[in-house]
Amino acid sequence: MGDCLFCKIAEGEISSGLVYSDEQVVAFKDIHPQAPVHLVVIPRRHLSRVSEVGEDDAQLMGNLVVVANQLARKFNVVESGYRLVVNCNAGAGQSVFHLHLHLLGGRPMRWPPG
Amino acid sequence: MGDCLFCKIAEGEISSGLVYSDEQVVAFKDIHPQAPVHLVVIPRRHLSRVSEVGEDDAQLMGNLVVVANQLARKFNVVESGYRLVVNCNAGAGQSVFHLHLHLLGGRPMRWPPG
Repeated sequence: MGDCLFCKIAEGEISSGLVYSDEQVVAFKDIHPQAPVHLVVIPRRHLSRVSEVGEDDAQLMGNLVVVANQLARKFNVVESGYRLVVNCNAGAGQSVFHLHLHLLGGRPMRWPPG
Repeated sequence: MGDCLFCKIAEGEISSGLVYSDEQVVAFKDIHPQAPVHLVVIPRRHLSRVSEVGEDDAQLMGNLVVVANQLARKFNVVESGYRLVVNCNAGAGQSVFHLHLHLLGGRPMRWPPG
């Protein structure tokens, strides 16, 4: 955790394009955006991957989605559409091992999703 | 709702490749799979799209992820990796307007996610 990039962003040790912050959740612009709107929503608490989200963390996981929805409204992509993506482990594309939810919008999203 | 395909699946009116069912959540195999493992996780309660998930629904939304995690273990894709995807509105690829979470695994997932 001491070396976790997203923990450092949450704690303000590394500056980022912060777009949201509350006691539990932080969101910022993806450094390698894949769409006109590409945000990353994370819990402040360090969980390495979504597979660690059990019943006790369901509310927290849901809160990440609620914040993503607020940001989708703020960034005006609800009507045009947005995609929420969580990658679990390297084979699915997870590169930072701190639970995070991608929000992509502002362009049509293709299928399959990667 | 009377015509909602996923409500009918949840109620057992339409048969599907059901893989999970509890009082709140149902999961089944995607009819057009995009990966060796491609499941769809839905709440029994009809919500048309993820943008309708507010604070009162955070726990329910999180429960969809918790069930997806259980299914990822059952279908043996945790180590190899899996991706969770929610599409909001047609521009993001949503085709059935009942909130649903895609779970894809069993192959490497590419980036961008669609």
